[in-house]
Amino acid sequence: MKNDKAILAAFKKVGPRIETKGRAKLKTKEDIALYYTPGVGVVSSHLAKHPEEARTYSVKKNSVAVVSDGSAVLGLGNIGPYGALPVMEGKALIFKERADIDAWPIVLDTQDPDEIVRTVLAIAPGFGGINLEDIKAPECFDIEQRLIKALDIPVMHDDQHGTAIVVLAGLMNAATVVGKSIKKMRVVVLGAGAAGVAVTKLLLAYGLTDIVVLDRKGTLHTKRADLNASKKELAKISNPRNVQGGIEEALAGADVVVGVSGPNLITKANIESMAPNAIVFALSNPVPEILPDVAHAGGAAVVATGRSDFPNQVNNALVFPGIFRGALDKKLKEITVETKLRAAKALASLIEKPTASKILPDMLDKRVVATVAKAVR
Amino acid sequence: MKNDKAILAAFKKVGPRIETKGRAKLKTKEDIALYYTPGVGVVSSHLAKHPEEARTYSVKKNSVAVVSDGSAVLGLGNIGPYGALPVMEGKALIFKERADIDAWPIVLDTQDPDEIVRTVLAIAPGFGGINLEDIKAPECFDIEQRLIKALDIPVMHDDQHGTAIVVLAGLMNAATVVGKSIKKMRVVVLGAGAAGVAVTKLLLAYGLTDIVVLDRKGTLHTKRADLNASKKELAKISNPRNVQGGIEEALAGADVVVGVSGPNLITKANIESMAPNAIVFALSNPVPEILPDVAHAGGAAVVATGRSDFPNQVNNALVFPGIFRGALDKKLKEITVETKLRAAKALASLIEKPTASKILPDMLDKRVVATVAKAVR
Repeated sequence: MKNDKAILAAFKKVGPRIETKGRAKLKTKEDIALYYTPGVGVVSSHLAKHPEEARTYSVKKNSVAVVSDGSAVLGLGNIGPYGALPVMEGKALIFKERADIDAWPIVLDTQDPDEIVRTVLAIAPGFGGINLEDIKAPECFDIEQRLIKALDIPVMHDDQHGTAIVVLAGLMNAATVVGKSIKKMRVVVLGAGAAGVAVTKLLLAYGLTDIVVLDRKGTLHTKRADLNASKKELAKISNPRNVQGGIEEALAGADVVVGVSGPNLITKANIESMAPNAIVFALSNPVPEILPDVAHAGGAAVVATGRSDFPNQVNNALVFPGIFRGALDKKLKEITVETKLRAAKALASLIEKPTASKILPDMLDKRVVATVAKAVR
Repeated sequence: MKNDKAILAAFKKVGPRIETKGRAKLKTKEDIALYYTPGVGVVSSHLAKHPEEARTYSVKKNSVAVVSDGSAVLGLGNIGPYGALPVMEGKALIFKERADIDAWPIVLDTQDPDEIVRTVLAIAPGFGGINLEDIKAPECFDIEQRLIKALDIPVMHDDQHGTAIVVLAGLMNAATVVGKSIKKMRVVVLGAGAAGVAVTKLLLAYGLTDIVVLDRKGTLHTKRADLNASKKELAKISNPRNVQGGIEEALAGADVVVGVSGPNLITKANIESMAPNAIVFALSNPVPEILPDVAHAGGAAVVATGRSDFPNQVNNALVFPGIFRGALDKKLKEITVETKLRAAKALASLIEKPTASKILPDMLDKRVVATVAKAVR
């Protein structure tokens, strides 16, 4: 990997990583008369009367807004819209290169949830989908729900659901590797932010029952008085054995730990306390909750991280291009839990014979987008 | 020209008229590591600290939002965001094809001026310029002024200033054709909406002094009690001879009429009442205030319209691509009156020897964008 100066130089040299491109030619006066004025007036009149046909006659057919307020960017935290812009632009690039989707980065000069909702509602008519990104918890939950309710195009907060879908897919194959029944596994989710909440809910929806979630203060349980609304809800639907305490108490005897929290929070001793053939997803980026060699030394059978330089990279880019490709193709109004479960199964199915070092397809695997898109209904 | 059904079929067949295109390659894992994660984190951290460098390291370098609320679309009126979408998409296509600018259509699900301003401010960080479009008067004036004041990127309402710049350029050459001094000409502006107000102000800024503006109720003058704020201002700075009455009274003895109002409002008799060698810009589209052959029969020496099937097409597309090309290249924060005047002169200068049927360059003239862009400072 290049050093910081070399990376900045490379970005300066390449300039914008995405651009626009004309799909209709404007070579002659006849072209201009057809595709601009006066021809365009006919389409405008038509869409004014039939707005539902915007997905047939306009850019709305294939466009996604990649929207962020910059409040929780990568592992960098609250760095605002200009900090978020390169990430959203990168996502727009991935959308095009992987799934031929015309995504445009929209970074917001506000972090007020009401303003964010108002702004996205205001710009929604021109887009076929909304990908929310890097918006901090717990605000992200309410923002996403309000937008889903108000809009007739798919809205997905990728930090939540993209992550949850890849995690579920990876766990399906990891369970196969260790010969356990996924639904009977005891799972610990370390982190109760956007990803932690969505992972927990999707695993529950898939049929897992024993999930313990931790925030910085310990396990979520119904006796805690310091929980915000989303954590309170999570405490109610998870932790059936009412485990109280910290990482140590939670991990003892667990089959799986999914870390979506911060660097170096899990020790070798924690792993040793888990059930035999433990599965460790240490997804904090770039520094995981525990390094793969340490986890393996502690007895872990399967280890995944968010990084490309270790085996089993858990990366949202395996999911979001295909989810939106399918949603746009099928003119979906919403991405349901059933769709997310189907997407996870489809992604997992791409690995015919999972092994400890191969539970998920590679980022460059060309089958991924089409397979996930096909699973979207 | 095709009929309506054929136009709709052509649009359906071509699909979105613009798309996105990757400028950075994502072929290898190294590409992804550089241009997506983790590489992009370096640029994000940098821009969080140095937001002013977003124009160097991101899509902001070359991007323009083409924003409309759909309240005054072409000659179609208030047809809302879905009606506006095909026009904004067409403008984005022109931006790319003519000036290599990455413009994206943003149509708004609100027509409340405060909401429009709030929304544009909220999405501005990712864009290098804002092209406002098809927003009705008088709201458009205040919206544009508030955005110009608040933002450090160029904001231009094209219906106002694009039109004004082309009209001034055309009038410069038309004056040459008829052998009159442009600054001494008596001008009548028929229409006190977005275009009429901007045309009047730019002509005054260029040095013309005798301009009479009319709305539907007649000439604007300081005695009228029924004027909104923008018309009241116009009444103060125009009409020095205090002409009262309608089209008939205004046109008697005038050298120029600029129609930015509606179809068939000017008669042959009106033209006959003008000064010899009258100049007629009948810009209502698709049906002009008076047809060219009727205007010529009434004694007009030079006639221009908004249409491509008559000589002398006055079209904003001669201006907006070059204005924004220049503004982006020079990282301008604002498009000043001086810039608009320079752009008009530059555009006019492309016609070396103006004639009655050639006062403006053709839409397909490849020199136009570079010439206008060069004039922007």
